[in-house]
Amino acid sequence: MTMEGFRVLDEKTLREYIKATPSLASKLGNEVDNFKIKEVGDGNLNFVYIVISPSGSVVIKQSIPYVRCIGESWPMTKERSYFEATALKRQHGLSPKHVPEVYHFDRTMSVIGMRYIEPPHIILRKGLIAGVEYPSLAEHMAEFMANTLFYTSLLYLTTTQHKTAVAEFCGNVELCRLTEQVVFSDPYKISEFNHWTSPFLDSDAEAIRNDKILKLEVAELKSKFCEKTQALIHGDLHTGSVMVTHESTQVIDPEFAFYGPMGFDIGAFLGNLFLAYFAQDGHVDNTNDRKTYKTWIMDTITDTWNLFYKKFTSLWDIHKEGPGEAYLHEIYKDMELWSLVKQKYMLDLFHDSLGFAAAKMIRRIVGVAHVEDFESIGDAVKRADCERRALEFAKNLMKKRRNFNTIAEVVSVVQ
Amino acid sequence: MTMEGFRVLDEKTLREYIKATPSLASKLGNEVDNFKIKEVGDGNLNFVYIVISPSGSVVIKQSIPYVRCIGESWPMTKERSYFEATALKRQHGLSPKHVPEVYHFDRTMSVIGMRYIEPPHIILRKGLIAGVEYPSLAEHMAEFMANTLFYTSLLYLTTTQHKTAVAEFCGNVELCRLTEQVVFSDPYKISEFNHWTSPFLDSDAEAIRNDKILKLEVAELKSKFCEKTQALIHGDLHTGSVMVTHESTQVIDPEFAFYGPMGFDIGAFLGNLFLAYFAQDGHVDNTNDRKTYKTWIMDTITDTWNLFYKKFTSLWDIHKEGPGEAYLHEIYKDMELWSLVKQKYMLDLFHDSLGFAAAKMIRRIVGVAHVEDFESIGDAVKRADCERRALEFAKNLMKKRRNFNTIAEVVSVVQ
Ligand SMILES: Nc1ncnc2c1ncn2[C@@H]1O[C@H](COP(=O)(O)OP(=O)(O)O)[C@@H](O)[C@H]1O
Ligand SMILES: Nc1ncnc2c1ncn2[C@@H]1O[C@H](COP(=O)(O)OP(=O)(O)O)[C@@H](O)[C@H]1O
Ligand SMILES: [Mg+2]
Ligand SMILES: [Mg+2]
Ligand SMILES: [Mg+2]
Ligand SMILES: [Mg+2]
Ligand SMILES: [Mg+2]
Repeated sequence: MTMEGFRVLDEKTLREYIKATPSLASKLGNEVDNFKIKEVGDGNLNFVYIVISPSGSVVIKQSIPYVRCIGESWPMTKERSYFEATALKRQHGLSPKHVPEVYHFDRTMSVIGMRYIEPPHIILRKGLIAGVEYPSLAEHMAEFMANTLFYTSLLYLTTTQHKTAVAEFCGNVELCRLTEQVVFSDPYKISEFNHWTSPFLDSDAEAIRNDKILKLEVAELKSKFCEKTQALIHGDLHTGSVMVTHESTQVIDPEFAFYGPMGFDIGAFLGNLFLAYFAQDGHVDNTNDRKTYKTWIMDTITDTWNLFYKKFTSLWDIHKEGPGEAYLHEIYKDMELWSLVKQKYMLDLFHDSLGFAAAKMIRRIVGVAHVEDFESIGDAVKRADCERRALEFAKNLMKKRRNFNTIAEVVSVVQ
Repeated sequence: MTMEGFRVLDEKTLREYIKATPSLASKLGNEVDNFKIKEVGDGNLNFVYIVISPSGSVVIKQSIPYVRCIGESWPMTKERSYFEATALKRQHGLSPKHVPEVYHFDRTMSVIGMRYIEPPHIILRKGLIAGVEYPSLAEHMAEFMANTLFYTSLLYLTTTQHKTAVAEFCGNVELCRLTEQVVFSDPYKISEFNHWTSPFLDSDAEAIRNDKILKLEVAELKSKFCEKTQALIHGDLHTGSVMVTHESTQVIDPEFAFYGPMGFDIGAFLGNLFLAYFAQDGHVDNTNDRKTYKTWIMDTITDTWNLFYKKFTSLWDIHKEGPGEAYLHEIYKDMELWSLVKQKYMLDLFHDSLGFAAAKMIRRIVGVAHVEDFESIGDAVKRADCERRALEFAKNLMKKRRNFNTIAEVVSVVQ
């Protein structure tokens, strides 16, 4: 992709850009001389601007050709913006209540204009740290995952549609490579990028590098990540990619989207809820022992999987005579067989999800990018304790994932 | 793909075409007024011409925009020729002794010019029916499969190379769909295309359509076929795609090539050897009880897998610090772990191969396209007996494949 015509925007040039772009200006009620711009990008990669006029608003996200938090020394194609815009539109189409609408996309400039997810929405991870319950979270996330994963899989698509889409998203390879490195490789070897709560976790990090069974398992998961084109996955579905209020759940930031294993999305979300759970003891104070909240997190994990199971299999039921070419109705219409098919598919998916959940947890404790859930625990000893328990659980989960048949069994290991 | 400039060649127009094409004429020593053309296509899909002058030879293969043996009522993109040419060149590069060289490719005309695999080469399937032993067959096929599969997998390629190639071969979707239909779907349902040795196998065919466990297993295999982009596979590696002499083994006809599960190729070859085995009792006559030959086939099956295992893992050893991104040396260098990694990978591949072998066997007995091994048994009762035994073995193999640890165990089930 050429750099011609590309320039990194700042507040001033963004103002000009918006003025010159009707699809953006119209969202501000065309009040092009009366809007405020605020840069809010807290992510590692991109710039995000909130733009508000008296009669409207828009969010502008620009990708730059390197990793923002590292600098130009770590180049990263700005074409990720194209895949983010494409995935956002597809996911909005499939789950409109839980994905912001895209108003504008400029491939040359790597600029996405989308709905401003207004306050009181906050990033879910921050809510989890603050101890806020979101009663519809499980339901909404189950709906988002069921819709986006089911409708982009061979359970719904024809082979022709599927292979066309797979081919297109192969183009997002640089982002896939980044995941391969930071999730499936770096935590299992010595790497300049790794860090952890040292010296407390030094031997834990070393133990991971020496754990043969764990490394066998993570190799299998990595292969699935690289080779299994099961559905259009979000690719970065942690609790920092979800914005919430009491009533609303919005999924953003699918720049890592590609055709991969469904369990990677489900695992990312569940794994990050587990991280939130293990961090709770570090957030206890005189006013709140977090016990109730820990129970709520565990219930949310349970409900997310169980509701996902229900929604996904009922989409499958609804479309069992649809265009999907994986399980032809004529072959699988016998009631008992149909039920066995679904059970087997969902159990495999469950085991994938648990494996990826574990991989996502481990990498957040001994890899390059950590999570605020733990980072916000000031006392290093306390933090290391929380992290160690999360790590032990994750290791066990990755190795024993095939022994679990229900999410209740997984949760009971923790509680 | 446009049809502009495309026309179906016949002997007369092919003659003009060769005259006008230096890369072909030169292979005939430029004796463009003195060569013979013979159409030999015995396949289901395409036209193949042998062209011989006093000082050279060439084979011309042309794809037409429908299935040759059915006619224009079953359209099939002639673009398969592009994927065949691309795969042939790649496979020739990786296994030059066992793949004919491509001299010429014309995408508009869907014409491939390649080395003439001269007599006494014959199609392996015909040799197997005639009861001819090929002492190097296992070794050669193991080499072909090890080289073509290893070097196109993530064990050797970077993610970037792999995803680029995956995307390109997604274009061969029509041929993938055909396989999905005739291998993984039609045999398990009532289909106008299915046939079998009736009435003798009527209840056997029905039993397959009613076998829930079998249908669960074939669904898993079908998903792997559609979703697992493990390597550039030949896609149609039966014994009709191999030409042999006592000393030479040549693999042709990779028009079904795409990034799929390695086990599909290995299984196609092994499965067709098993078919040849089960057909032998139908070829017994006064002069030959075929007992020795049956043993040779079983030994060839055993050797093929064991030599493949050896060659594939030693390529992996040689390139363990190479560009492949799946198993980074730094993570897996511990000797015991390295050995575990290979064992696990190869056992999974073994189970895939057995599953696909079984699927390929079943479809040749109750599906649309049968094999000469059985078709050439004139006595229908005898033929049905052979086919039934093959079918029972295949069903058992598909269901129990995960219980086998070595090829010797599989072979001992038969003998
Ligand atoms: N549509 C939006 N509405 C409101 N805030 C947003 C929106 N998109 C992003 N943000 C804010 O910007 C931050 C970074 O956005 P994100 O898409 O996650 O970027 P990155 O790819 O750099 O992680 C988010 O955490 C959120 O606070
Ligand atoms: N390079 C070759 N040299 C000699 N004979 C060949 C060659 N390629 C094909 N043939 C002959 O033509 C037949 C059909 O070729 P094949 O490539 O299998 O076509 P199809 O795709 O229609 O099955 C083969 O079975 C073989 O007898
Ligand atoms: Mg983000
Ligand atoms: Mg992001
Ligand atoms: Mg052929
Ligand atoms: Mg053929
Ligand atoms: Mg062919």
